[in-house]
Amino acid sequence: MTDSDLDSDSDPAELAERVRTGTLRLHELEDHVDPDTAAEARRHLLEAETGADLETVGDYGFPAEEADPNIENMIGAAQVPMGVVGPVPIDGGAASGDYYLPLATTEGALLASVNRGLSAIRSAGGSNARVTKSGMTRAPVFRVDGVVEAAETVEWIEDADNLETLREAAESTTSHGELLGIEPYVVGDSVYLRFAYDTKDAMGMNMATIATGEACEIVERETPASLVALSGNLCSDKKPAAINAVEGRGRSVTADVVVPGELVEERLHTTADAIAEANTRKNLIGSAKAGSLGFNAHAANVVGAAFLATGQDEAQVVEGANTITTMDAREREDGTTDLYASVSLASLEVGTVGGGTKLPTQSEALDVVGLRGGGDPPGSNADALAEVIAVGALAGELSLLAALASRHLSSAHQDLGR
Amino acid sequence: MTDSDLDSDSDPAELAERVRTGTLRLHELEDHVDPDTAAEARRHLLEAETGADLETVGDYGFPAEEADPNIENMIGAAQVPMGVVGPVPIDGGAASGDYYLPLATTEGALLASVNRGLSAIRSAGGSNARVTKSGMTRAPVFRVDGVVEAAETVEWIEDADNLETLREAAESTTSHGELLGIEPYVVGDSVYLRFAYDTKDAMGMNMATIATGEACEIVERETPASLVALSGNLCSDKKPAAINAVEGRGRSVTADVVVPGELVEERLHTTADAIAEANTRKNLIGSAKAGSLGFNAHAANVVGAAFLATGQDEAQVVEGANTITTMDAREREDGTTDLYASVSLASLEVGTVGGGTKLPTQSEALDVVGLRGGGDPPGSNADALAEVIAVGALAGELSLLAALASRHLSSAHQDLGR
Amino acid sequence: MTDSDLDSDSDPAELAERVRTGTLRLHELEDHVDPDTAAEARRHLLEAETGADLETVGDYGFPAEEADPNIENMIGAAQVPMGVVGPVPIDGGAASGDYYLPLATTEGALLASVNRGLSAIRSAGGSNARVTKSGMTRAPVFRVDGVVEAAETVEWIEDADNLETLREAAESTTSHGELLGIEPYVVGDSVYLRFAYDTKDAMGMNMATIATGEACEIVERETPASLVALSGNLCSDKKPAAINAVEGRGRSVTADVVVPGELVEERLHTTADAIAEANTRKNLIGSAKAGSLGFNAHAANVVGAAFLATGQDEAQVVEGANTITTMDAREREDGTTDLYASVSLASLEVGTVGGGTKLPTQSEALDVVGLRGGGDPPGSNADALAEVIAVGALAGELSLLAALASRHLSSAHQDLGR
Amino acid sequence: MTDSDLDSDSDPAELAERVRTGTLRLHELEDHVDPDTAAEARRHLLEAETGADLETVGDYGFPAEEADPNIENMIGAAQVPMGVVGPVPIDGGAASGDYYLPLATTEGALLASVNRGLSAIRSAGGSNARVTKSGMTRAPVFRVDGVVEAAETVEWIEDADNLETLREAAESTTSHGELLGIEPYVVGDSVYLRFAYDTKDAMGMNMATIATGEACEIVERETPASLVALSGNLCSDKKPAAINAVEGRGRSVTADVVVPGELVEERLHTTADAIAEANTRKNLIGSAKAGSLGFNAHAANVVGAAFLATGQDEAQVVEGANTITTMDAREREDGTTDLYASVSLASLEVGTVGGGTKLPTQSEALDVVGLRGGGDPPGSNADALAEVIAVGALAGELSLLAALASRHLSSAHQDLGR
Repeated sequence: MTDSDLDSDSDPAELAERVRTGTLRLHELEDHVDPDTAAEARRHLLEAETGADLETVGDYGFPAEEADPNIENMIGAAQVPMGVVGPVPIDGGAASGDYYLPLATTEGALLASVNRGLSAIRSAGGSNARVTKSGMTRAPVFRVDGVVEAAETVEWIEDADNLETLREAAESTTSHGELLGIEPYVVGDSVYLRFAYDTKDAMGMNMATIATGEACEIVERETPASLVALSGNLCSDKKPAAINAVEGRGRSVTADVVVPGELVEERLHTTADAIAEANTRKNLIGSAKAGSLGFNAHAANVVGAAFLATGQDEAQVVEGANTITTMDAREREDGTTDLYASVSLASLEVGTVGGGTKLPTQSEALDVVGLRGGGDPPGSNADALAEVIAVGALAGELSLLAALASRHLSSAHQDLGR
Repeated sequence: MTDSDLDSDSDPAELAERVRTGTLRLHELEDHVDPDTAAEARRHLLEAETGADLETVGDYGFPAEEADPNIENMIGAAQVPMGVVGPVPIDGGAASGDYYLPLATTEGALLASVNRGLSAIRSAGGSNARVTKSGMTRAPVFRVDGVVEAAETVEWIEDADNLETLREAAESTTSHGELLGIEPYVVGDSVYLRFAYDTKDAMGMNMATIATGEACEIVERETPASLVALSGNLCSDKKPAAINAVEGRGRSVTADVVVPGELVEERLHTTADAIAEANTRKNLIGSAKAGSLGFNAHAANVVGAAFLATGQDEAQVVEGANTITTMDAREREDGTTDLYASVSLASLEVGTVGGGTKLPTQSEALDVVGLRGGGDPPGSNADALAEVIAVGALAGELSLLAALASRHLSSAHQDLGR
Repeated sequence: MTDSDLDSDSDPAELAERVRTGTLRLHELEDHVDPDTAAEARRHLLEAETGADLETVGDYGFPAEEADPNIENMIGAAQVPMGVVGPVPIDGGAASGDYYLPLATTEGALLASVNRGLSAIRSAGGSNARVTKSGMTRAPVFRVDGVVEAAETVEWIEDADNLETLREAAESTTSHGELLGIEPYVVGDSVYLRFAYDTKDAMGMNMATIATGEACEIVERETPASLVALSGNLCSDKKPAAINAVEGRGRSVTADVVVPGELVEERLHTTADAIAEANTRKNLIGSAKAGSLGFNAHAANVVGAAFLATGQDEAQVVEGANTITTMDAREREDGTTDLYASVSLASLEVGTVGGGTKLPTQSEALDVVGLRGGGDPPGSNADALAEVIAVGALAGELSLLAALASRHLSSAHQDLGR
Repeated sequence: MTDSDLDSDSDPAELAERVRTGTLRLHELEDHVDPDTAAEARRHLLEAETGADLETVGDYGFPAEEADPNIENMIGAAQVPMGVVGPVPIDGGAASGDYYLPLATTEGALLASVNRGLSAIRSAGGSNARVTKSGMTRAPVFRVDGVVEAAETVEWIEDADNLETLREAAESTTSHGELLGIEPYVVGDSVYLRFAYDTKDAMGMNMATIATGEACEIVERETPASLVALSGNLCSDKKPAAINAVEGRGRSVTADVVVPGELVEERLHTTADAIAEANTRKNLIGSAKAGSLGFNAHAANVVGAAFLATGQDEAQVVEGANTITTMDAREREDGTTDLYASVSLASLEVGTVGGGTKLPTQSEALDVVGLRGGGDPPGSNADALAEVIAVGALAGELSLLAALASRHLSSAHQDLGR
């Protein structure tokens, strides 16, 4: 897309009319006028066609051109209320110090709940957090004649020299990414190769896709396998899949805290035992009975709101929900019972560069966290963001479980959620 | 929260200073000044504390007061680029006619992809869609002494008179909602009761929670069961759970289309057989091998973008990913091979009233779809919205599978996704 | 099969020779000689072809004719060591009193382990048990044109009159079975109808299949749906499927016990807290992380061994593994900590009539349990058998978790398992 | 257990009486008399207590002493009818040539069905088969203080030198087994280490348990982790778990065949297209909708019957059901449509040494397959057995799907199953 050849005639209403009469196509407007005018023309068209008034949608706070990598057929922007929680001290593998976390959501009571949890964590001295595994995956699927060729392909892949050849090809497409490994899976006459990459501070889905595409050409040349689809769903992107819950995707990150018994009573108005019981019956046994991959109360709420605020891919909230929450009563020597609380997010896919992170409000939000752009060392910003979000999720779990344990979920929604 | 007692001193910078020095708490600002000033004060504070510049976050296009039911600790709004796809003719159970669908996303190439699919659907005469099951669920967990009391509780619940008593209690809390049924589950000394409601045009999570809370009081009074948590995770809200994928939650909705072979070649640049093969190896067999509950390519992308645009709960994208895509080559009598394509979303949780739907940009977006507010008959607007989103997801599947089948996923991202 | 026309020439060796030379086929032997001679001829053939000595296989303790409903191409019998555990007092919904349970297995240490658990249960006064849900399912899959016809079919099925028609058809094929309900599921152009039956004392798979087949003819006649397969895998038989773990199949049965703290120490050589911790980390959290539908230690061991001894379908051990074990420390007023232990088997498919229950050793084993043949009232024997097996599984869980908690799993295998 | 000190008084009836009166315990009988007399005494006791007649149970064809490693409290043996299927030519990675497979079952029509499938495979020239992955796993769970210690433990494990130390410890306990690798998983304050072993021709569960126990002592000594249970359910043994379906356990084995269109019609009385449709709607889409880990028709039937006949662990049928069946119509140049059929068993746990394989009938059955004892090279016999069972499962799938496609499942059961 270039700025050349823009129509002298750039009246939005007239452009809308040309689209309506079929002499211009909706997605071609940017070929004729600047992006903001194109968006205005589309609003004109939609207002005429549907009777909607798009005033607020059109009242966005950035040049449309900046959103060009992120949207087509732009008409404006959705505005989602953004609040902030924190600060909370985090002792992480990458995060260190006090963090604020912006959250964008339409769910009333969510920020109040997270803040209540963070307040307890803060009083308890802060949260620990660690990324325990990392790797963005892409898994193409290949067609072979049958298992004989499948076994031959797997054998070729597992040869160390061949892996090196694939690594060179894959890494030739990226300045930062590193291939971590390739795991083969065979089902009949289909072979799936799950490529895992260190994508540093990028969420890395596109990087992984492009690098894998390059490697696939070699696989096709050197083995009997023929590519069917660059993604064969063992990646698995934006689907609720056990492979991610078990093996991880993006960052596997755990945050935890020990809340002294006194604080549990004072701040959360219940006991460690009551919270542990609620967690066991709801998050562990209830989830087990539900056939779930998510053993938590509402981790997706915090992940989703943090993703929206900081420009992550909102559909990857799906994987963010692959979270296990544990709550355990720990008895001290003096007989007081403290609460050990943790969340382990198996597949949190975050980045501080690329994607939606460059958009104006999102980039400002990342500045609030203090984690915009590439980290030093590379990858450390995305690691730290994962840890901060995990602590936010931990706070949300703590708060909701405490509320359930003390039975005021329903009335909390009545008061705050309307 | 009332407007009374607002401080005469409403200078944001000074308020920020008072928060910083601890004489005022961050979430108490609205007790002293109007919501917009409170948000401004928070931005001041964050800018001072973190060095961030929150100009665009603060440049939101609606009175902060309107977001009061949706957020706490507001600092402004996230602005997410919104575009539009369509129009596409839909023959639905509730939707009927031509629909535009606004999508808000930061994922480049998504709208172009969906539009390509919709264009093929439009040329094929439009899509069918039906809501085949409906019901918002809430499943409290109760503690009993053991299985003897559990069996006693289940027996009480399954008595028709008692069900009627519970129905009256539950429905007494809502003007619209109707209790559809209660399904009991026993695990050791825990009893889970999954309440399902017809919540009409509301997504209905809060309605279901409040109604269930009322019914729980009777269960506790009449049986040995004692409430542990109003949600016992068999609901299951915002978790990737088989119970939703199997039994549904919110709307279970299917959209389908038969694309004539000629159109598959002309518009999608591949063949029905190639698309069917890609779907089988990727969406069916690949997902099977991944231990997935989502047998689709990227339904969550469309669900997420539509949710964001229309004010749905972004974390419920998780359940929206419980989608099965089927693609089948159907041979016509004349030897031409057409493509049958469908998506079945087991648990799409949508509403056209309540929650985030009342926010300015979201409500404008619902006007674009033509489905804002309560439907006539009640529930028909939310049904129709579910059908429109399903058709959008179908378009996304068609387009991506066609792209995979013709091998240009990688280069499409290189061109459009940057 | 009749005894008429048996060959005068019934020398096994000569018959084997005729099979080898191709003038007689392996499965046709029973057309020429009595079943025992046919089996002998096959052993001759195999001994000649493979060099195996089949003396013990041929040394079975019943007339081959009795196994005719259970096997084809019979060569003899597998002999699996059978032992016995018990007695244990059970206070069940159907079972009442003291029960012995025969178990057939090749896994050393299994019976010793179960007996250790039963001993603790016995000392604790026995176990409670209840069947909390019951129904054998069969789910045919139908082809429709698309979702419009699918919705039409579902609507037809959900009409009360039509359900009655289907019930009459289904029940016309069986003297005992009762149709409990039909649950419809739609995926694109496929419709699945999950029929559930009360099959009384029979496991009931065949009964359900035949009855459903009859009902399907009406569905095909009255709706646009066309049968593709009598089983569409939503049944789901002999597959690890969430639908069974969530909704149950066969009997859903729970057994539990409170073991006083003193007994936990004396008999199980550990504490309630240690067992509860092992259960939480292993059976709950470990299973969660494994993406499991089975939250137990080794329920399948007991289910498998009991199935084998009592003539159940050995492949249905798969569903028997859909078991959740809970272990909870309960503090008494005097400060002693007791252990609450439970197993909940979601889908235990058992019968006391039909299938393998009529075979000699199996029928003798059912006599040991005291539950051979039809119960009074009908269904009560199979219910009781489910409860007894559940108590056996509970004992196995108790014992293994206690062993793990006290760390001697490894050495137990070294001593007993060889 | 030794033969010394056997009581001179070995009258079974008197011994039974002594047990009944409590002067002797049921499991102590072998301390006083030889195993056969002990079993007889138990039968006496049970006959007296329950009224059962245990004649056939007591009529077992081997010295009870031989079953001593496999059973406690022995009373005799379950006799399960055994038949044979085959022969079928297999071109495997380890299996090569014509194989008979003994199957022990009580499910009428099963062997007839498998034989029908094998006959089609034989006519098609035989089946291919390959073990594509191999490794028996054991995954202990450790307690740590929190994620800081968890990360520390993972780091220690991932150090190459430490891995070597653990390997030496683990392998010191076994003459054959080799440690393949250790995969760490973190959930809050629990660390799971999944050890994988090459156990050669043994199924290897005990070998893996003992070796892992040895390695755990080092982990406890060198890291902050403290062992809670030698099995933490990420192994995962005898539970329906995605980790096995995705990553495999024991042998991951695929068998496939192309059945020419002419044979599909002649032998299976249907068409490749009809079978492929049935497979897609039932095994793929139906299983998807059921939330299943098993995408097959009845693989567990064949696995279970083969396990029983050849002395495998019957409870591991659970993992054997983690099987994906694919059926695809392949058009030849001449327009004929052939059928590609495959089964991929992700986690088939088999051995030809150890466990129940040494029992008389089981060892004879292994001789029929030609795969008793250790292979040359080590592991090849168990590999070959896995391939033969996979081909049996493939035959069962082919036959049942063909039957479903041609609609005679119901009547087949009526005829054969009774």
